[in-house]
Amino acid sequence: MKAWQFTGTNQPLELNEVAEPHAGPGQVVVEVRAAGICHSDVTALDDAGWMPLFPELPRTMGHENAGVITEVGEGMDEWKVGDRVGLAPVMSDGDALGYGKWDGGFGPRLLATNDNLVKLPDEVSFELGAMATDAGLTAYHAIMAVGGAKAGMKVGVIGLGGLGYIGARVAALSGAEVYGAEVNPETRKLADEIGLAGIADSIDAFKDKNLDLIVDYAGFGTTTAAAIETLAEFGTFVQVGMGRLEATINTYPIIINQLTIKGSKSGTKEDLEALYELMKSGQLNPPINLITQAEIPEAIDKLRVGGVVGRYIAMYEQA
Amino acid sequence: MKAWQFTGTNQPLELNEVAEPHAGPGQVVVEVRAAGICHSDVTALDDAGWMPLFPELPRTMGHENAGVITEVGEGMDEWKVGDRVGLAPVMSDGDALGYGKWDGGFGPRLLATNDNLVKLPDEVSFELGAMATDAGLTAYHAIMAVGGAKAGMKVGVIGLGGLGYIGARVAALSGAEVYGAEVNPETRKLADEIGLAGIADSIDAFKDKNLDLIVDYAGFGTTTAAAIETLAEFGTFVQVGMGRLEATINTYPIIINQLTIKGSKSGTKEDLEALYELMKSGQLNPPINLITQAEIPEAIDKLRVGGVVGRYIAMYEQA
Repeated sequence: MKAWQFTGTNQPLELNEVAEPHAGPGQVVVEVRAAGICHSDVTALDDAGWMPLFPELPRTMGHENAGVITEVGEGMDEWKVGDRVGLAPVMSDGDALGYGKWDGGFGPRLLATNDNLVKLPDEVSFELGAMATDAGLTAYHAIMAVGGAKAGMKVGVIGLGGLGYIGARVAALSGAEVYGAEVNPETRKLADEIGLAGIADSIDAFKDKNLDLIVDYAGFGTTTAAAIETLAEFGTFVQVGMGRLEATINTYPIIINQLTIKGSKSGTKEDLEALYELMKSGQLNPPINLITQAEIPEAIDKLRVGGVVGRYIAMYEQA
Repeated sequence: MKAWQFTGTNQPLELNEVAEPHAGPGQVVVEVRAAGICHSDVTALDDAGWMPLFPELPRTMGHENAGVITEVGEGMDEWKVGDRVGLAPVMSDGDALGYGKWDGGFGPRLLATNDNLVKLPDEVSFELGAMATDAGLTAYHAIMAVGGAKAGMKVGVIGLGGLGYIGARVAALSGAEVYGAEVNPETRKLADEIGLAGIADSIDAFKDKNLDLIVDYAGFGTTTAAAIETLAEFGTFVQVGMGRLEATINTYPIIINQLTIKGSKSGTKEDLEALYELMKSGQLNPPINLITQAEIPEAIDKLRVGGVVGRYIAMYEQA
């Protein structure tokens, strides 16, 4: 089978013939149906600082996958051939699909373990199922697991592209009253589709709303500062976005309003299960651009340039 | 009886003859034995922004008190004349002793309710009992209730004057391994007395210690920034001090190390009970300067100038 492989920093992905995977004990083979392309793939290719994540080369990339089980190894009796699955990317030892010793979904079949496997409900498509494993998981973890969004809460979301769209929509579907902040006028037009109670270019436009929670998926420093000035007493701010890593903040509202600020990254298998449950309603449909496996390097080039709206998802034909 | 009263912004305290208090339903009269003088008394006297806290003038100031019950009102049968008590300053409606409609301890007797009353153990002196109700309570709440310091934790404390001394000592007495950061070389000499495992001028000197918790009692912006760069993964930072209210921070460690940042102010009656329990050992002895009621205005003048080491506590003679 053919797989797009990482061979070193500043090298293009190589389409190599690789051996078919076979399931050892505690493993299954998953036939990949959908593989998301992530901005972190660009960083892995371009930034020599990521080389320690690739102790063995070449490595098939792709950490955002959903598919169907085609082979079941010893001790994996709870799974069977034909099961639809999404794959949480991170292993319990900190390694991950598409890094370290695990091939990812830029090839048509891969090995997975119980660290990764989550049942993909029939109601959720492979492309949405794949998107959910990284972009979806990170967005969900920040606003639900870390932020504690729920029905009755007033929630602010900063940045409505990519992760922010998903985070805001998840909170709205969970019954929260959600207010969005987004600098791009085109993206602000998504307010109704997301189900926002209000939209502005900066979150401090909603200071009178007494927001319980603000999640910052943009992270431009000024967004952090505005959120701290906007939250209600005992409010929580969650930092996810890394647009600009320096923030100049006012500590007075942190103390006087007894705020909590938390950082959030990635998410857990339990988050992915909960997100799939929410997605069964068919009401979480962020923008997606479907491509083929052959188009993966081109999609990475476009992400490198920037300005892409919607997640690139490579779809594989059924074998 | 004579009491030092606040009459308006930028007016000196006035020593006025005031009526003896009598306990109504749900109230007791407490004969004040020790009344702390707090830097917030200076602010209340000097800053017109605090005037809304004084809807009725004149008002006897003093929110840091311990004493003995001399009269018990209807429905207060759990208390009796002669009980030694410390008084948590804040009422359940947000009002406080020495503000609003409640006279404070700059006069010899005052009214208190179940919102304030905490039994003062025989082992704890009136002066330490008074200090504990505000300086002690704020320090304790930040490091124990908000920060969760306990045996086995590695804890950093920034600023070892006033509140920081108490916070660091409380954490050390609770069995935590405590590291201190203090810019004043004289104050750094208190390291052994407090029971510190290490002392430096900046908390980032302890980056290799993997600190679980850092509490910043100084709050100079740079202290906040250094703490965020120093904490271990999943570490907690608590902001108490307001030395300078602007901080320029790096959000990267917040996200990658999944940190929690919390603001803390004041404390609860439960905190005060727990603090008194800890103080029964006789091992929490922060610097204190004992004065008389007559010397209260002079102590306030000294706090206004700054550089005071040790809490000023006005002691009353037994009636």
